[in-house]
Amino acid sequence: MNTLGTNFRISIFGESHGKWVGVTIDGCPAGIALNESDLLPDLERRKAGAAGTTPRKEEDLPIFVSGVFNNSTTGAPLTIVFENNNTRSADYESARNTPRPGHADFVMHQKFNGFNDYRGGGHSSGRLTVALVAAGVVAKKILKGMTIDATLTEAGGSADIEAAIKKAIEQQDSIGGIVSCTVTGLPVGIGEPFFNSLESAISHAVFSIPAVKGIEFGSGFEAARMHGSIHNDAMIDEHGRTQTNNAGGINGGISNGNDLYFRVAVKPASSTPKEQQTWNNSTASVEPFTVKGRHDLCIALRVPVVVEAVTAIVLADLCISRKG
Amino acid sequence: MNTLGTNFRISIFGESHGKWVGVTIDGCPAGIALNESDLLPDLERRKAGAAGTTPRKEEDLPIFVSGVFNNSTTGAPLTIVFENNNTRSADYESARNTPRPGHADFVMHQKFNGFNDYRGGGHSSGRLTVALVAAGVVAKKILKGMTIDATLTEAGGSADIEAAIKKAIEQQDSIGGIVSCTVTGLPVGIGEPFFNSLESAISHAVFSIPAVKGIEFGSGFEAARMHGSIHNDAMIDEHGRTQTNNAGGINGGISNGNDLYFRVAVKPASSTPKEQQTWNNSTASVEPFTVKGRHDLCIALRVPVVVEAVTAIVLADLCISRKG
Amino acid sequence: MNTLGTNFRISIFGESHGKWVGVTIDGCPAGIALNESDLLPDLERRKAGAAGTTPRKEEDLPIFVSGVFNNSTTGAPLTIVFENNNTRSADYESARNTPRPGHADFVMHQKFNGFNDYRGGGHSSGRLTVALVAAGVVAKKILKGMTIDATLTEAGGSADIEAAIKKAIEQQDSIGGIVSCTVTGLPVGIGEPFFNSLESAISHAVFSIPAVKGIEFGSGFEAARMHGSIHNDAMIDEHGRTQTNNAGGINGGISNGNDLYFRVAVKPASSTPKEQQTWNNSTASVEPFTVKGRHDLCIALRVPVVVEAVTAIVLADLCISRKG
Amino acid sequence: MNTLGTNFRISIFGESHGKWVGVTIDGCPAGIALNESDLLPDLERRKAGAAGTTPRKEEDLPIFVSGVFNNSTTGAPLTIVFENNNTRSADYESARNTPRPGHADFVMHQKFNGFNDYRGGGHSSGRLTVALVAAGVVAKKILKGMTIDATLTEAGGSADIEAAIKKAIEQQDSIGGIVSCTVTGLPVGIGEPFFNSLESAISHAVFSIPAVKGIEFGSGFEAARMHGSIHNDAMIDEHGRTQTNNAGGINGGISNGNDLYFRVAVKPASSTPKEQQTWNNSTASVEPFTVKGRHDLCIALRVPVVVEAVTAIVLADLCISRKG
Repeated sequence: MNTLGTNFRISIFGESHGKWVGVTIDGCPAGIALNESDLLPDLERRKAGAAGTTPRKEEDLPIFVSGVFNNSTTGAPLTIVFENNNTRSADYESARNTPRPGHADFVMHQKFNGFNDYRGGGHSSGRLTVALVAAGVVAKKILKGMTIDATLTEAGGSADIEAAIKKAIEQQDSIGGIVSCTVTGLPVGIGEPFFNSLESAISHAVFSIPAVKGIEFGSGFEAARMHGSIHNDAMIDEHGRTQTNNAGGINGGISNGNDLYFRVAVKPASSTPKEQQTWNNSTASVEPFTVKGRHDLCIALRVPVVVEAVTAIVLADLCISRKG
Repeated sequence: MNTLGTNFRISIFGESHGKWVGVTIDGCPAGIALNESDLLPDLERRKAGAAGTTPRKEEDLPIFVSGVFNNSTTGAPLTIVFENNNTRSADYESARNTPRPGHADFVMHQKFNGFNDYRGGGHSSGRLTVALVAAGVVAKKILKGMTIDATLTEAGGSADIEAAIKKAIEQQDSIGGIVSCTVTGLPVGIGEPFFNSLESAISHAVFSIPAVKGIEFGSGFEAARMHGSIHNDAMIDEHGRTQTNNAGGINGGISNGNDLYFRVAVKPASSTPKEQQTWNNSTASVEPFTVKGRHDLCIALRVPVVVEAVTAIVLADLCISRKG
Repeated sequence: MNTLGTNFRISIFGESHGKWVGVTIDGCPAGIALNESDLLPDLERRKAGAAGTTPRKEEDLPIFVSGVFNNSTTGAPLTIVFENNNTRSADYESARNTPRPGHADFVMHQKFNGFNDYRGGGHSSGRLTVALVAAGVVAKKILKGMTIDATLTEAGGSADIEAAIKKAIEQQDSIGGIVSCTVTGLPVGIGEPFFNSLESAISHAVFSIPAVKGIEFGSGFEAARMHGSIHNDAMIDEHGRTQTNNAGGINGGISNGNDLYFRVAVKPASSTPKEQQTWNNSTASVEPFTVKGRHDLCIALRVPVVVEAVTAIVLADLCISRKG
Repeated sequence: MNTLGTNFRISIFGESHGKWVGVTIDGCPAGIALNESDLLPDLERRKAGAAGTTPRKEEDLPIFVSGVFNNSTTGAPLTIVFENNNTRSADYESARNTPRPGHADFVMHQKFNGFNDYRGGGHSSGRLTVALVAAGVVAKKILKGMTIDATLTEAGGSADIEAAIKKAIEQQDSIGGIVSCTVTGLPVGIGEPFFNSLESAISHAVFSIPAVKGIEFGSGFEAARMHGSIHNDAMIDEHGRTQTNNAGGINGGISNGNDLYFRVAVKPASSTPKEQQTWNNSTASVEPFTVKGRHDLCIALRVPVVVEAVTAIVLADLCISRKG
């Protein structure tokens, strides 16, 4: 299903080469000031165009369909759509017979018995993240007193990201990266001991971002190599402030008032310019394959704003309450 | 909330030092052969008693309350409880003033305005994982043709786990570990493109296990350092079999028919024998702290069967379908 | 929240005088033949234009936004929108100070702190039922072998509906009616013993239709006056066929293989041409009130197709199953 | 599924002749004073023993399994169980071949392929309502400032209920009744315009009570025969108070601040002492049938407290809010 959240609930729809992609936010509180232009800065951060990103550029102008009146949210479902005005579907016809390595072509075909819209990945396209970013802007407005800041801290194995991108362009091969995210101002007590632990809720949302393959909170995988006496964060005041933050701001699944901190592993874009091998259904053999279409060499460049968005959406769902 | 799943839905209840802990499974298909004794092998794997685990031992005898009749599931809610017969609550009285470092004492107190049952962590206790393991056994019975195998592949930073435990005992300090999990036989097409990606669903469940702080699928964090041409798994037949498995069996959030593979980071147990520092509410100062109670030096030893359980629960929820 | 269903899940959005109203169907199986024109017959049945209905007519041409490709459903979210091209918002400005009797003006204002779109009832408008009818057509396509037939069997207290409408026009006062609905072909076993009884699920959906104030299954309220020996339906074959159908096809919350039968009470439209009284916020007194805008004298005329739609949506949710 | 609610969520389990029946409440706020004895008055109202009720009497002593500590709710899942100590399963063996008319025997057998616990109706037993009543007591404690009052206002077609019961005993045939429920003190704004209208939510819960076959809000079915000018309730002050209450306290699905009022139709108990006809699977013919076991002649006598309970549960779910 394509819905996330309980009290602040978002649903996405659309395909890469369809008419529109969009999002409906249900449970958004009434009275939040909101204009289409408020969405532009985050949409801009997500856009292609920088070195290492796809030459396919969309206008990405949000259209409010419902739920906003006189520049305020109304409390009714808030639907936002984006036109797809830069599609070149012909690029994808070959995908029907030769599933692109690393992509969802094969699994979507199997899952939906061949009825899926295969053009540009159809519904399984990174294009849909424009809808996530839009919803994220609304969520951020709800989270008063908090900041959410995600940045690319590593690309192609290097902290010098500019150099890494340059090298990828030279080598004409896609690269991955690490996105680090910090949330400040989160109150104590958000999250549940087990199934809806804060780690559960955030990881659930973050793994909905295409290309994400790992997540760790606080010291994460490094914690597995630490002693308890080192890993434990000593509490130093009655508000729960701790001397270190190996827990990443979460104890027992619940926010502890310190900064929430997590890191996300982004794989290299599946659409690398390098020649690869894949199964060809029409010839029933493994054959060389070169990707068509316009793609990102380092998709990780565009991921931080999406990580911020889904984090904001999750926190809005957990922090707001709406009666009735 | 303490419920996981939609069609195969489990709810847990109970506290470390309460009367019983238990689980209700709703949506369990009728006609699955089930006896209390079927649960014992996995319950045994979770039990304490090995070197590096707590001396608190429970009988862990499952009691079927409902949903089983004539040794078969009935389709009605299946409730299983376990008695808590080995509680030493007095060990925990001091926790009210001095929140144990790394534990949920402080956050639970804040979240529930001091009304939480603080004895032994109350509802936030690893004791509840006995209920997860019980539900996992039922889930595994549903997943015909699949195997789920989780093992501790690293402890205290070493692949020689026995040596690592020995060293931890010598040093009297808790250690963490890495649990690796492989699922074979999973059909193609399980998972959704975005919010309910297979990674989302599994990570959500796995982070509900106390002490888990990281998860990665396939090459995971290493993928962030690979080139796309290397990371992509070449498809070599019409069933989607791939030459490598950097994707961990998941493309675009959906199972691709290869082995599902992921790794889980488990932090060192917060209750280390080493002296630590924490805030003392009664003296309003930071003070030395030594943990009381009986605890695990390497809680990671007991985690694999719990990882298997929650994985089975998630897959049962995604794979079964129940009308009406 | 504006979402109904679990496995076949619909979400509606839009306002009476907004840009579009629409619906997203998530969980729709792939491979169902679907064209915009398939929706027209049911949309036509819902339309105004007959004697006793509002002169506001919309084109009601469905636009498929996503989820349909090559005239088949794809399995991805299916979004359908309708333009609002016949709005006269000026009619509603007075509603801000004088809440229309029987309408949601007052409660929506209170619920959303005055931020709701009040024009034509905003989100609380019968206009949204166009989205329900559209989703109903898709649901009906899934329910192979079943028929759902709802008709107006009583208007203004009379079974001669034509005469009742004529009288209402003469008296210039709105009237209510009774809609009867029969489902044939429903298999045995749909519904749950308690919270998701078939009566629970259907009544939940039917009460989402504006103006519905009562529902009864089988003999319904009359059953409260019958003896058990009369009310019980004698089973006459091994398929569960019964001699009578006082149960309306449901025993213990579960379909029994006989026709599902229920009746729905529809109140008279709140917007009657007769002068009424209401509170005027600007003068702080009770004052005479005459409704503006274009309205239905017998809204019940337009309800049967909506009853069919929500019934189909509920049954699709209960009868289909979708893995993953 | 056997779960009701989102933020205040109850799950029931157990069978008529099983070990225990019980309920888990998840989302219950912490800090509500609660003792087992608080439940006794409502449990007493539900009990058998009066003229017209079954001679099967249970002790109905609630046992708190979890979620209560030092006589207060803790915020963790609150599980309450009741022993079944008065079961005579032998009474029910014949039900396997001759499904009792009006009961769920046939449909449960079909739904669960014969694996259901058939003794005393198994999970489909009115016995489970003891769990609803227990949860209702907790819910009522949350609804400060509100009263919920349900009473039997009609039995066997007569408002003289005592006489009706007497007559049913003389005639040895079960009778139905009408339960009327009024809620005072409900704030304005509870409920949603469409799918989660207050009528939707309440009817969903009320139809989970065995034997309920109809519900109407305010003037209900009578409204279908009224003119709009009469049915509309004139608002007479700025708080939304109305002169009449034909709407039963709900406009557009949302509470309007007046008394919430609805009526519920309860069918006669299916287990009437009168001889009936049913299909006999072993002889493959229709045969006379006389019910065994101990049963209620007028089950409606025991329904009001259950109606109150589910109403309280629904309103608690809609009125409370719990972060995180």
